[in-house]
Amino acid sequence: AQIALERDHEAQREIDTRYRLLMDFTNDSIALISVGSGLIVDINQSAALVLGRARSDLLGKSLADFFVGHSRDSLVSALEKPQQAGAPANFEVEVKASQRKLQLAGKMFRASGEQLAIIRLAEPGAGVVADERLS
Amino acid sequence: AQIALERDHEAQREIDTRYRLLMDFTNDSIALISVGSGLIVDINQSAALVLGRARSDLLGKSLADFFVGHSRDSLVSALEKPQQAGAPANFEVEVKASQRKLQLAGKMFRASGEQLAIIRLAEPGAGVVADERLS
Repeated sequence: AQIALERDHEAQREIDTRYRLLMDFTNDSIALISVGSGLIVDINQSAALVLGRARSDLLGKSLADFFVGHSRDSLVSALEKPQQAGAPANFEVEVKASQRKLQLAGKMFRASGEQLAIIRLAEPGAGVVADERLS
Repeated sequence: AQIALERDHEAQREIDTRYRLLMDFTNDSIALISVGSGLIVDINQSAALVLGRARSDLLGKSLADFFVGHSRDSLVSALEKPQQAGAPANFEVEVKASQRKLQLAGKMFRASGEQLAIIRLAEPGAGVVADERLS
């Protein structure tokens, strides 16, 4: 049983490492929020740059607070409206600090009982270009 | 102890879910290979499309076999040459089946004792554009 437990721990650490690496390695700016609270549960370096803050300043903060005219409720309701079934929701926001416009694409999912949303922050129009890049 | 174990399992499933979601959600075409064997341990839908195969046909196959003039050894040695410290290695390959040229960017890492490489497959020049997109 001890050996099985250790194997479980190893497998967990490996997926954890893969997840971390992938967050850093992707060209996308990615944030994960808790849908219930609207708080940022994870965010990569690239997304922190886009918001103009250190990563450590962003964890546990409300993502909506960084955008003009948004609250947790309006952000979640925008995330709940995918344009097609299975496709991510897509909408534009303006960053308070920089007045910069961003295109947000997001998808909700359930992880160990809690609902999370994975959100990509991109230049307006960039998501379309990227999706068509390899087709 | 039972409760702690269950909590561990929940945490593991959550990271697992996040990793899966992120692989699907990213605009990047991503493959993970075992450095020792050169075999594909994971690959996302976007990368499978680029290689022109179903995902299930690619898992456990040698990534180098899909590229003209490459073996496990030449692929790993290309991955071992980052252009700057900390930066991913970058090199071009040609897909056998389609003669399509791809820019590979890759980084080695160690996960539970095994060395893996995370590799991004992009159009030649696309990585540069993507990196500059938000700067």
